[in-house]
Amino acid sequence: MTFSYNKMKEKLHTIIFGTDTPAGKAFDVMLIIAIIGNSLLVIAESVDSIRNAYGLLITALTGFFLIIFTIEYILRLLIVERQKDYVLSFFGIIDLLAILPIYFSFFLPQVRFLVVIRTFRLLRLFSILKMGRYIDESSQLLRALKASKAKISVFLFTMLFIIMLVGSMMYIIEGPENGFVNIPESMYWAVVTVSTVGYGDISPQTPVGKLLSSLLMIVGYGILAVPTGIISHELANTPKGVVKTKICQKCNTEANSQADRFCSNCGSSFGS
Amino acid sequence: MTFSYNKMKEKLHTIIFGTDTPAGKAFDVMLIIAIIGNSLLVIAESVDSIRNAYGLLITALTGFFLIIFTIEYILRLLIVERQKDYVLSFFGIIDLLAILPIYFSFFLPQVRFLVVIRTFRLLRLFSILKMGRYIDESSQLLRALKASKAKISVFLFTMLFIIMLVGSMMYIIEGPENGFVNIPESMYWAVVTVSTVGYGDISPQTPVGKLLSSLLMIVGYGILAVPTGIISHELANTPKGVVKTKICQKCNTEANSQADRFCSNCGSSFGS
Amino acid sequence: MTFSYNKMKEKLHTIIFGTDTPAGKAFDVMLIIAIIGNSLLVIAESVDSIRNAYGLLITALTGFFLIIFTIEYILRLLIVERQKDYVLSFFGIIDLLAILPIYFSFFLPQVRFLVVIRTFRLLRLFSILKMGRYIDESSQLLRALKASKAKISVFLFTMLFIIMLVGSMMYIIEGPENGFVNIPESMYWAVVTVSTVGYGDISPQTPVGKLLSSLLMIVGYGILAVPTGIISHELANTPKGVVKTKICQKCNTEANSQADRFCSNCGSSFGS
Amino acid sequence: MTFSYNKMKEKLHTIIFGTDTPAGKAFDVMLIIAIIGNSLLVIAESVDSIRNAYGLLITALTGFFLIIFTIEYILRLLIVERQKDYVLSFFGIIDLLAILPIYFSFFLPQVRFLVVIRTFRLLRLFSILKMGRYIDESSQLLRALKASKAKISVFLFTMLFIIMLVGSMMYIIEGPENGFVNIPESMYWAVVTVSTVGYGDISPQTPVGKLLSSLLMIVGYGILAVPTGIISHELANTPKGVVKTKICQKCNTEANSQADRFCSNCGSSFGS
Repeated sequence: MTFSYNKMKEKLHTIIFGTDTPAGKAFDVMLIIAIIGNSLLVIAESVDSIRNAYGLLITALTGFFLIIFTIEYILRLLIVERQKDYVLSFFGIIDLLAILPIYFSFFLPQVRFLVVIRTFRLLRLFSILKMGRYIDESSQLLRALKASKAKISVFLFTMLFIIMLVGSMMYIIEGPENGFVNIPESMYWAVVTVSTVGYGDISPQTPVGKLLSSLLMIVGYGILAVPTGIISHELANTPKGVVKTKICQKCNTEANSQADRFCSNCGSSFGS
Repeated sequence: MTFSYNKMKEKLHTIIFGTDTPAGKAFDVMLIIAIIGNSLLVIAESVDSIRNAYGLLITALTGFFLIIFTIEYILRLLIVERQKDYVLSFFGIIDLLAILPIYFSFFLPQVRFLVVIRTFRLLRLFSILKMGRYIDESSQLLRALKASKAKISVFLFTMLFIIMLVGSMMYIIEGPENGFVNIPESMYWAVVTVSTVGYGDISPQTPVGKLLSSLLMIVGYGILAVPTGIISHELANTPKGVVKTKICQKCNTEANSQADRFCSNCGSSFGS
Repeated sequence: MTFSYNKMKEKLHTIIFGTDTPAGKAFDVMLIIAIIGNSLLVIAESVDSIRNAYGLLITALTGFFLIIFTIEYILRLLIVERQKDYVLSFFGIIDLLAILPIYFSFFLPQVRFLVVIRTFRLLRLFSILKMGRYIDESSQLLRALKASKAKISVFLFTMLFIIMLVGSMMYIIEGPENGFVNIPESMYWAVVTVSTVGYGDISPQTPVGKLLSSLLMIVGYGILAVPTGIISHELANTPKGVVKTKICQKCNTEANSQADRFCSNCGSSFGS
Repeated sequence: MTFSYNKMKEKLHTIIFGTDTPAGKAFDVMLIIAIIGNSLLVIAESVDSIRNAYGLLITALTGFFLIIFTIEYILRLLIVERQKDYVLSFFGIIDLLAILPIYFSFFLPQVRFLVVIRTFRLLRLFSILKMGRYIDESSQLLRALKASKAKISVFLFTMLFIIMLVGSMMYIIEGPENGFVNIPESMYWAVVTVSTVGYGDISPQTPVGKLLSSLLMIVGYGILAVPTGIISHELANTPKGVVKTKICQKCNTEANSQADRFCSNCGSSFGS
């Protein structure tokens, strides 16, 4: 009995976490469909006309996905080694958030908006698809972003400073009568402007304010070049990944490039 | 009779599909003029004042282009080897869409708006001009785009996820009373914001909404750097074209351009 | 007499066209000040409150600059070899446009707006400053732009096509009742959207229109990466300029790079 | 007495200007907290509802930061060698501006808005954090910007010219009745448009104005590629930092990173 239970557990593990077997693939595809369907349902439910016309169908499908995700959650709970680790892990919480709010909404209809949290489940797609063909590209992007972390920090800090400064100045120059009611509002305007979004809900009215805004726009425009240049430069310098790494057999240090002939940490030869 | 028909067919083929003979060139130029003229006609017709003033001229020109494109379509039908393949091909459908709606509109004036489909014919320009001097550049761009397909997919998926997430959150935070009437509407707002378009038809009103929007803008602003960096990086790594390189037979140095007649390294002739 | 006239002509030539002598430099600086002052005057004159307060000063300064530019024009006419060539040249016309409209406005006050054409004179700044330290950078930029001409053409053509297509479709989808009164107006909206400007004077109202707009925005957003990548790539491949060109003494062909040892056109050695 | 004073002065110098000692680090961290807290206070004070609710707390905290910054200013004055140089230096003025306006505002409540100048103190953060880990990245960015100064000047000048020209033309085309009340206003619109911000407070109404705007947008869109390309290109050519490279003394190969302990080419040790 225990033996066959363990065997079943192992089999389930292959299906749920693996991607190589047909059953594992089928499970992934079905989960992707369920997650996307669930999200589309949340979207559809928010539209008055759809909710009024297909209210019953939406409730039925919500129940259906609820059952699927509940079963999935229980299965995951059963097969993982350390239940506590899974429950407290990022995806454990995400998986729980996909089902809990619906149970709540059955008893407390007024917190119905909590249901939107279900869309967080889309994050699972990253975890599922990461095991696919995108991992290489995705990780190259991530590494390029990580490598330029310091540069991007300096850039973000400078931008925050400019936003704070220009926001304060515009609050003084334009004042509450022109929509710049306080500094946070002014800073919001500065972000809207420097990011070139420009809603136009708040816009400068005085000549001095317009001049300062113009400067901010040109700066914001030019400053966009900086992160682009950084990423572009970093991508060019980031190795493609995965298949290309040589690892030192002595000290396990990764070679900096394929062309390296000796380990840069312990000096032992990589062989041919 | 059959012989001369085949000969004529062959000649027509050279004119319609070829670009090297003077007749082929003239046909291309005339077709380009007709396509652009036809599109300008569709544009002009949509303007009330022009339609009222030059209604007759527009009808006459529409008929004129209709005849030209009908003849062209019949000719293409006659000279291609497999009629069915052409009719069902992309350009076969485009060519048919350029004439069919007009015939419809003569009998069913109320579906007149179908006529706009005629502008799809502009796509033919790609097919005609592709045979010109732009093919090399165009295909280099296409190859760069193709090479970065996976990266761009990851990027688009991430953006879609952000749009969905922020859209849902803004629907909860701002609610229908501030213009975020449902999640699709909120997602539309998120696209308008993250792409830095910022119409201002919907904009956040609550402090929390403004804070979240500001974050989205800065992220959207920074995230623009990613596709730019990708394309830029990919372009740098994409070879210019297929036929491109001459190599010196003596010293193996690559010629700097096709126009070089002597090796810039050792001075030996490249031959004719 | 003739001799001294020629000598004076030569001297004037050095002053007006040269930049190396102190007098030539002083002339350039004065001309730059006059051109900028003249443009600021045009700007100031357009502001009602300034015109009302300082009307007389503005008229006086306008007259002053008119005299200066008239003298300059006559001097240029006198010292150039072929008067006709200068008058019909680009800068000849620009120089004339800087003075003619003012003379007109004295007799025909109602065409006063012609006076704005005077600002075209700012273009002279390019011609003056080009002879300064910016020539290298400027020409490198120009060469990079020229080198990517074909790619940019393909890009612009694709964008025009997208604008035309989406404009027509939005005209059908949204219609005149939502502000898309005709196709040119729709195309204007498409440009405003794809360039991420987003005034919000026209914006989609129907769900289908909003969906199509969202697609256009994401495309427009991504497509921005293309010209950036092209320029960035081209700049990296464009040699810095000026000092770096070797020219073949036999056939006058420019070397492709400093590293070339033989002329790539005629095969003769560049020497050491 | 003098001796112990000098010793204390030296000690204070280590604390205030140094970052290596625990006391120096603690001072920096406290100063950063005070500066950020002070700025948040200015922001909070500008919001009516917060000022009404926590008026007393804000006054108290303002006084608290005032005392801290006054003590800091006096300490800096005491320990620097040349008092006059510090007082007239950039940061000397910034430090003074952080305290002076508050003293003023106690006597002249109507100039209360001067208090906003206190946020300028955020600039100190640059000076403090520059001594941290960001210096390398920051200076690389600065050097890349400096290296492309000439190119960016040409770019900015061209943009200013386009803004001036298009602004003037739109003033003539659209005129005061469509919101283009004078040339400065038109130029403000041109900046808003070319930087793709697009508030929509002023937008073209006439067909000719819309056509010209469309051209400006496409140009502005394309022109954004130029500074991005420049920065990107410059970053690629800027060496990472000053102390950066270890070179193998045997084979002259550069180490891939500072952390390498053995040459990756010949395997010889880099020494300690």
